[in-house]
Amino acid sequence: MHPFARRQRDSIAAVGEQRLIAAIRRWLGETSPRAPFGIGDDCAVLAAPRGRELITVDPVIRGRHFDDSLRPEDVGAKLLKRNLSDIAAMGGRPRAAVLAVMLDSRVRIRWLERFYRGLAATARRHGVKLVGGDLAESPGALAASLTLLGSATGERVLTRSGARAGDRIYVTGELGNSRASGHHHAFTPRLSEGAWLAGRKEVRSMMDVSDGLAKDLGSLTPRGSVADLEVASLPLRSGASVRSALSEGEDYELVFTLSARADRAAFESAWRRRFPRIRLTCIGSFRRAGKVRARDPFTASLHGYEHFR
Amino acid sequence: MHPFARRQRDSIAAVGEQRLIAAIRRWLGETSPRAPFGIGDDCAVLAAPRGRELITVDPVIRGRHFDDSLRPEDVGAKLLKRNLSDIAAMGGRPRAAVLAVMLDSRVRIRWLERFYRGLAATARRHGVKLVGGDLAESPGALAASLTLLGSATGERVLTRSGARAGDRIYVTGELGNSRASGHHHAFTPRLSEGAWLAGRKEVRSMMDVSDGLAKDLGSLTPRGSVADLEVASLPLRSGASVRSALSEGEDYELVFTLSARADRAAFESAWRRRFPRIRLTCIGSFRRAGKVRARDPFTASLHGYEHFR
Repeated sequence: MHPFARRQRDSIAAVGEQRLIAAIRRWLGETSPRAPFGIGDDCAVLAAPRGRELITVDPVIRGRHFDDSLRPEDVGAKLLKRNLSDIAAMGGRPRAAVLAVMLDSRVRIRWLERFYRGLAATARRHGVKLVGGDLAESPGALAASLTLLGSATGERVLTRSGARAGDRIYVTGELGNSRASGHHHAFTPRLSEGAWLAGRKEVRSMMDVSDGLAKDLGSLTPRGSVADLEVASLPLRSGASVRSALSEGEDYELVFTLSARADRAAFESAWRRRFPRIRLTCIGSFRRAGKVRARDPFTASLHGYEHFR
Repeated sequence: MHPFARRQRDSIAAVGEQRLIAAIRRWLGETSPRAPFGIGDDCAVLAAPRGRELITVDPVIRGRHFDDSLRPEDVGAKLLKRNLSDIAAMGGRPRAAVLAVMLDSRVRIRWLERFYRGLAATARRHGVKLVGGDLAESPGALAASLTLLGSATGERVLTRSGARAGDRIYVTGELGNSRASGHHHAFTPRLSEGAWLAGRKEVRSMMDVSDGLAKDLGSLTPRGSVADLEVASLPLRSGASVRSALSEGEDYELVFTLSARADRAAFESAWRRRFPRIRLTCIGSFRRAGKVRARDPFTASLHGYEHFR
């Protein structure tokens, strides 16, 4: 759906801010609580979370994270799910979100309605409340930035640091071919899996794969080590090449590290009992630099998605 | 300063994402804590706030909230202060912020540095930590959206609802001529004043004046009442007309309501002791609709700043 209206009466310019905000609250339904616990005051008021708090922010921008072939509902869903994937990557549970939308006044009302309805459906599914927002006109633009609050599900928040030489590297689900397959918007954020992993002491560090495994793994790699990947073991999504699995990005899977001392078989069997349908793959391990064999030059040349280059 | 570089080597495209993020952390200095308590992991981790939590989001967009005549430092400061004003309007204290930036790859590195340094200086002044962010390329764009977390300073959070017929309307500082005077970016958010007002039981409701008093007052007006303004009493900023004081917007002052039963003289004298330099003006009261005299047609025609029209 092309987001810009041909006729002025189909565009948000025909409605004005006050009526538009009223419409948005209708589209969001019960995921939008009343002020002061939601939209309509200077701030939204929330009860303090029980455990530690998590916060993340990610946008969707037309021409970058979506194009006009994507249904507006899927754009809204993708926006929230990108952020849910970040909460999952720390082992947290999502709580509430605020949304800043920047858009041209020619944007179709119908496009915006479908966007908000897709966002609301995903919010409902994951128990997220949309408690605040801002709507600003920006000529030529169609972009939205969502800030998601969450909280720790247990004692521990899993971060990117903590792996040591010898630790094994695991990835959930499959990698690659994310754009062509539609996975980039149709994925399910790994919230249950992330919370479960954060509760396992043998799991040392975790992140989500968003910029491509080859680049993202750098953040998990301990100083003085290198990631020694068994390329043949990479769980490829249907239609994916190894190159795409390593560097296309937007996989929104979890990559985590298991202590070298852990009972690998027991861990994998516990995973299978808890998540029988979600593939789990050991794709390699960290080795001290210098001790590792010369890297496959093909793999070494892949760096994942680098912004601004 | 024009934000787009003429030579590619002066633009962010010459740097790449990784080095840019490292530079941003340097520019932010100690207002940017280390991961997992700041930038560098999937989420930032925060201790839970003691009292109720506040959250707000507001952007600055080139061509809308700033133009190329404004120093980049002032753009960064304005972005945070707009949000601080929302926390002030609930009587809260600010805590931490995340920032989503959308920009063209031609943006000057120097522009961005000055923007972040202005933001950091304001954050330092108000004890705000910048704990997370996202940087995304968007052709032609230069915009940033900041989400600010705060917490209640006491038992009470002051909302927009609570006023009754007979209550008096007060405003802090001066109104009007905000753009030409530079007040729109040079203002001081009324954080101490807001927290003090939230602790006074005779104060019933509050908000900040951002879209113009004429429009914003609608949110404080109780059902069945009208705001009866004494136009002659409006505290005009130097060079401001009454029209501008009512409808230009970007005043970032507090407008609040005092119970009809309150001892007005005692309240005003307590204010003067606490804030001897900040002007406080009673600008009218709420009266039951039907009982009020016919409104000045000039005043009635002003509606403040309406977006998308």
